[in-house]
Amino acid sequence: MSLPPTQIGAPLSEIDTPALIIDLDAFERNLDTMATAVGKLGVRLRPHAKTHKSPIIAAKQIARGAVGMCCQKVAEAEILVAGGVSDVLVSNEVVGLRKLERLASLARHARISVCVDNSIVLEQLALAAERAGSQIEVLVEVDVGAGRCGVRPGPAAAGLARQAAGSRFLSFGGLQAYHGSAQHLRTPEERRAAIASAANATMETLRVLKEAGFQCRTIGGAGTGTFELEGASGVWNELQAGSYIFMDADYAKNVADGTRNANLFEHALFVIATVMSTPSGERAVIDAGHKALSNDSGFPVVLGRPDLRYHRPSDEHGLLDFDSASSRLAIGDKVTLIPGHCDPTVNLYDWYVGVRGFNKPDARVEALWPIAARGAVT
Amino acid sequence: MSLPPTQIGAPLSEIDTPALIIDLDAFERNLDTMATAVGKLGVRLRPHAKTHKSPIIAAKQIARGAVGMCCQKVAEAEILVAGGVSDVLVSNEVVGLRKLERLASLARHARISVCVDNSIVLEQLALAAERAGSQIEVLVEVDVGAGRCGVRPGPAAAGLARQAAGSRFLSFGGLQAYHGSAQHLRTPEERRAAIASAANATMETLRVLKEAGFQCRTIGGAGTGTFELEGASGVWNELQAGSYIFMDADYAKNVADGTRNANLFEHALFVIATVMSTPSGERAVIDAGHKALSNDSGFPVVLGRPDLRYHRPSDEHGLLDFDSASSRLAIGDKVTLIPGHCDPTVNLYDWYVGVRGFNKPDARVEALWPIAARGAVT
Repeated sequence: MSLPPTQIGAPLSEIDTPALIIDLDAFERNLDTMATAVGKLGVRLRPHAKTHKSPIIAAKQIARGAVGMCCQKVAEAEILVAGGVSDVLVSNEVVGLRKLERLASLARHARISVCVDNSIVLEQLALAAERAGSQIEVLVEVDVGAGRCGVRPGPAAAGLARQAAGSRFLSFGGLQAYHGSAQHLRTPEERRAAIASAANATMETLRVLKEAGFQCRTIGGAGTGTFELEGASGVWNELQAGSYIFMDADYAKNVADGTRNANLFEHALFVIATVMSTPSGERAVIDAGHKALSNDSGFPVVLGRPDLRYHRPSDEHGLLDFDSASSRLAIGDKVTLIPGHCDPTVNLYDWYVGVRGFNKPDARVEALWPIAARGAVT
Repeated sequence: MSLPPTQIGAPLSEIDTPALIIDLDAFERNLDTMATAVGKLGVRLRPHAKTHKSPIIAAKQIARGAVGMCCQKVAEAEILVAGGVSDVLVSNEVVGLRKLERLASLARHARISVCVDNSIVLEQLALAAERAGSQIEVLVEVDVGAGRCGVRPGPAAAGLARQAAGSRFLSFGGLQAYHGSAQHLRTPEERRAAIASAANATMETLRVLKEAGFQCRTIGGAGTGTFELEGASGVWNELQAGSYIFMDADYAKNVADGTRNANLFEHALFVIATVMSTPSGERAVIDAGHKALSNDSGFPVVLGRPDLRYHRPSDEHGLLDFDSASSRLAIGDKVTLIPGHCDPTVNLYDWYVGVRGFNKPDARVEALWPIAARGAVT
């Protein structure tokens, strides 16, 4: 792990760049807004730690009522549990005997659940739990439209539920019904249609499960783009949004629902970069490229500077074009970037720099939080 | 830092995926091939550590004759020096008083050089070196065609050389003349034309410097795609190739020079992934997405399986399409991916898994090397 880019109490000018900044005020408002929203919806919140990879942020979510965390990797779950989280869902399929053994061992130290969409893997999971002497809860993943993992809606889930319920070391907990690709549909109408379709697929599966005698403690799914729809549907009871704490430039392209004027959440995650070269009148080179920003969902947006456009990233550099001479930047100038995609951008850094009073003259570094599960790929 | 994905002595089947693999035999052949090539060319090699971010790999390069390392960030230089490397060029502009102070302090513990393209920064660098009581060598960066950092070819370099030579704490070492975008031009003719143009720009600058009374100890530049051209030009005397140790799918698209039949270097870096779901007859889901592979220069290629195509990555998943039923994959199957772009892919992992006899039945894990400067973004 590299050294932190600044120290507690430093002003913004004394942060080495590129640095990953949390606007703590906006971040805390986002946490509160979501806690209020799920309260009104009457559903549980199990936020996704794939976004932040940080036990301290998990603790703040749990302190505001979240029932536990979800994550995508056993290695993330190990780090969350080591960081004090006592209830973790790996909202993903875990394949491979070594990984299943790790998961089963972890289940001796925390409440662990995991998604399954295959009978052979479920058998291996049961054996791993038996060997470890632990209990694991199983959610059967149903493909409700994302076209990635999961069994088809309908009868297939009942067979896996029966198999899980038949093991002394497993329990059948319910369904994982996450529509990933719906999160980034741009209009409210498209998102409503996608989640209505996912709700039908989930209800059809629940009907078959009920006929087969299975109750679902948990119907999990939803993300930041659609959670109000799942939450209000009467179908889902546990929401797994993650990005709401930070919001990125890609999510900002979603058009807000017509019943309110703006997206509920604020940008709270930024990359501060420095102009390191101004080799011509038309461009400025900044010190943030592919290793500082994940550009898989589009380039970052420069906060408060619509006249500047990020482009042509290479590994350690990015270029800023500007509209007119009045926009020119000088060497040493700082720019604040809203990342295109927060999750894989967070994964590039070792440290969060938590700033209180961001964008105020007396802004100060209040916290340095290690991104503990960064690189936890297995 | 996360736990290593396997242990020394393990077979390939006992590596948790996704994992970053070095084929140690191919890697060592690449090291030897480059050492031989620069020997024949009669130039120095200062390999780029931005590729590997590892003091142990740096040591292997230095043991084969490299004069030192280059890197892009002060934080990388700090980790290289802490790992025993005694001669480091930051082949990039360093901007900001804190960073310059760090660089100047580092220069008390190793021979440090750095690129400069701006007079104000050069003044700050001299002051930082004076305060630290250290000596720093300056290379003036010239934009020889890449269109990123660097002064224009010609007289501008002489002013910076004079300024550097005027400081008791700095020395003028020569020119940084790297043509980044030439590395990935696909045909030998395009690469030859680009480097011929870069050579002219460099010679023009050298002429002006000579008239002003300045000798250049170092004319640095070149990458894996063009190093034979710079090396044979009589202009450059220190080559900075990095990717040659690993080679990626993007470099493999370069057409070899007509004077030989194949690229000099072999693929030596791979990501092993596991099929984690096979939800329909047409696709398999693997456990390697944006957090396991940097797709900025194209998707990975599946080693030995031209019938499989990687596509639609999300954060933790990738899809493999196949041509026919005979190509079908089963849950638990492993695939070996050649990353699209090695440098930012390496930056996603904490560990190299060094395998001896890769692709032989008795392949074994021989080494676990931390990617020490991973995330060293400042």
